[in-house]
Amino acid sequence: MPATPENPFADIHDLLLLVPEGDEAAVEAVRARDARLTKPAGSLGQLETLVEFLARWQGEPEPTLDNPMVAIFAANHGVTDQGISAYPRAVTAQMVANFTRGGAAISQICALHELNLRVFELALEVPTEDITKLPAMDALTCAATVAYGMEAIAGEPDLLCIGEMGIGNTTVAAAIFAALYGGEGADWVGRGTGVDDAGLARKARAVDAALMRHAGRLDTPFSILSHLGGREIAAMLGALLAARHQKTPVIIDGFVATAAAALAHAVNPAAIDHCIFGHVSAEPGHAKVLERLERRPLLDLGMRLGEGSGAAMAAVLAKTALHLHRTMATFESAAVSGPTE
Amino acid sequence: MPATPENPFADIHDLLLLVPEGDEAAVEAVRARDARLTKPAGSLGQLETLVEFLARWQGEPEPTLDNPMVAIFAANHGVTDQGISAYPRAVTAQMVANFTRGGAAISQICALHELNLRVFELALEVPTEDITKLPAMDALTCAATVAYGMEAIAGEPDLLCIGEMGIGNTTVAAAIFAALYGGEGADWVGRGTGVDDAGLARKARAVDAALMRHAGRLDTPFSILSHLGGREIAAMLGALLAARHQKTPVIIDGFVATAAAALAHAVNPAAIDHCIFGHVSAEPGHAKVLERLERRPLLDLGMRLGEGSGAAMAAVLAKTALHLHRTMATFESAAVSGPTE
Repeated sequence: MPATPENPFADIHDLLLLVPEGDEAAVEAVRARDARLTKPAGSLGQLETLVEFLARWQGEPEPTLDNPMVAIFAANHGVTDQGISAYPRAVTAQMVANFTRGGAAISQICALHELNLRVFELALEVPTEDITKLPAMDALTCAATVAYGMEAIAGEPDLLCIGEMGIGNTTVAAAIFAALYGGEGADWVGRGTGVDDAGLARKARAVDAALMRHAGRLDTPFSILSHLGGREIAAMLGALLAARHQKTPVIIDGFVATAAAALAHAVNPAAIDHCIFGHVSAEPGHAKVLERLERRPLLDLGMRLGEGSGAAMAAVLAKTALHLHRTMATFESAAVSGPTE
Repeated sequence: MPATPENPFADIHDLLLLVPEGDEAAVEAVRARDARLTKPAGSLGQLETLVEFLARWQGEPEPTLDNPMVAIFAANHGVTDQGISAYPRAVTAQMVANFTRGGAAISQICALHELNLRVFELALEVPTEDITKLPAMDALTCAATVAYGMEAIAGEPDLLCIGEMGIGNTTVAAAIFAALYGGEGADWVGRGTGVDDAGLARKARAVDAALMRHAGRLDTPFSILSHLGGREIAAMLGALLAARHQKTPVIIDGFVATAAAALAHAVNPAAIDHCIFGHVSAEPGHAKVLERLERRPLLDLGMRLGEGSGAAMAAVLAKTALHLHRTMATFESAAVSGPTE
C-alpha cells in the first residue's frame, strides 16, 4: 500500500515483504564449473559458497565483482549528551573528512583491494534527539531517511558492503536490540570506541532510560527505528532493501550495521537472505544478535571499528573467491587425474 | 652437538633448542605508532596484532612485506598402496605442474595478492616406504630432507607461508599426531581430499598398523618423523626452523603443515613462537591439534585444500594490516579529536 502521512512506512513495508527470490539456476551453473576445477570438491569451503552467494543474488551464472561498493552512512546522535562515548560528537564529521582524504582504515582497505568507497553524510549538523528524553526523529523523517538510503546505492554496484560512522551509535544499536529481543541495557551495551567502566554503566542506563521513555511505542520495527534512531541505521535499512530489489548481494559490517539488518529481519526474515555478515565484532552484543538471526559471520578478527571495515575485509575474501572460480584450471585443461571411483 | 651417522639430527636438535627471542622493542615501536592512528585503540583487533607479530619476528620497528614467500613442499607416500586417498599418486606431480603453470588455487591466490610462490619437489619419483610395513625413510635421509627445507628458503623472504602437496599425506600427518598425542587412527584421520566411509576406515586402519609396526621406535620427534614420514613434513620442519634463525615470521597452513610445527613444538615449544596458524582446516583433527598447541587460528573458512592456501589467505590479512599501519592518518595529521579523558 502507498505511504501516507499516517503510515509513511507503507511502501517500505511492502518492499520488505515482496522480496525477490535468489536465482538457484545461477548457483547450479557455478557449482557445475566449480566441480571441474583442479581441487577436491568442497575443499575451498567458504570461498566456494561465496561465489554461489554472488551468483544467487546477482542472478548471474557468471557473477562479477567489477563494481564493488563500500557505503558508509554517517550520522550524529543526541544521546551523546548522556556521556556514553569516549569521543566527542565532532569526531563524526572529522572522520567523514578523513574517509574521503584517505586517512581512515576503511579508506586504505578500499585503496589496497580496489573497492569503491562512498560516504553518505546524514545531516551531521542535526543530531537526532536524545532518546532518553524524546523520540530520535519523527516517522516522516525516518521514512525519508530510509528512502535516502535506497537512493544512495542506485549506481548498481555488483556487491554492496554496508557500514557506518556515528559517535554514540553503539548505544543506539544496543537500544534497538533490547527493544527487538528483550533484556535490559546491560545485556546489550559494550565498550564501543572504548569507554571505561563508568561510561559503560552510563550506556546501560541510557538504554534503560530510552526503553522506559518510549515504552508502549516500540511495538513495530519502524516504530523502534524512529523512536531510537539513528539516521544511519534508517539509511542502511534502505540500502540493504534497495540492494535486494536491484540484485546486489550485500555484506553487512558489525554491531551497528547489524541493527539495520535485524530491523529488516523483524519485518520479514527472508528480507535479509541476500545479506551475509562479514565478521563478528568484538562488541559483545554482536555475537548474541547473530545467534538470534541464525547467521555465522565470515571472519572473527576481534575488530570493532565500524566504518564498514569488517565487511570490506570479507569483500576481499569474495574477490579472491571469484578470482579463483574464474581463473583456476580444470581437470581437463591441466591434465590432472580426477578421483579414483 | 654436531651431526654424526649415529645421530644425524644433533645439529637440528640444537637449532630447535637455541632459538632467538622475539624483538619486544620493535613491538613497542609498532604499538606507539598504532596508538596515533585515527581509530580507537585496539579496534582493528588481529589486524593490529599481525603487525606486532611481523615486527617481533623480523626484529624491525618498521616491518616489511616486500618479499612474502609461499613455499609448497611436495612429496609422495608409499602408504597410498593402502587405498587411503581418493586420488591416484600421480596427482602429486600433476598438481606440481599445475602450480607452476598458474592453474591451481594457490597459484591464483598468489597472483591476485602478489605473493611469491615457490614449489619444492622432494623426489616425487621415489615415494617413502609404506609405513604400515617399513619405516618411511632412514634417519640420514630424513635429516638431509630437513636440511633441504632449511636451504630452500635461503632467499630470506620477509614472510614465509608454509604449505604442501602430497597424495596420502593426511594419513601420514594423522599418524604423527597419534604418535605425539596418543589415541588411535580413528581419532585423527579425516576425509582428506574426499574419501568415502570405506576409505576413511582404511585410513584409520593404516594409521593403527603403522603405530603398531613401529611401536617402541616412536619415542622422539625425530624418530616419529623418520618412521612415519613424509619428506614434505621433514622439509617443512627445516623451513620453519631456518625461518626463525633468519628472522622470517611464518604462517603455517593446515593439517599436514601443522604436523611439522607439532614436531618442532615437541622438541621445544618456544621453537614455534614465530609461527602463526593461518586457518583451521575442515579436516577434523586440525582443531584438536591447535588446541594441544594452545594456538588460535586466524581464519575459519572450512577450507581443506592444503597447497598453502589457508596460510596465503592469512598472508592477505597480514598485507592489509601492514598497509593500514603504514598509510593511515594519525590523529594529529588528520585533525581528528582524540578520546575525551
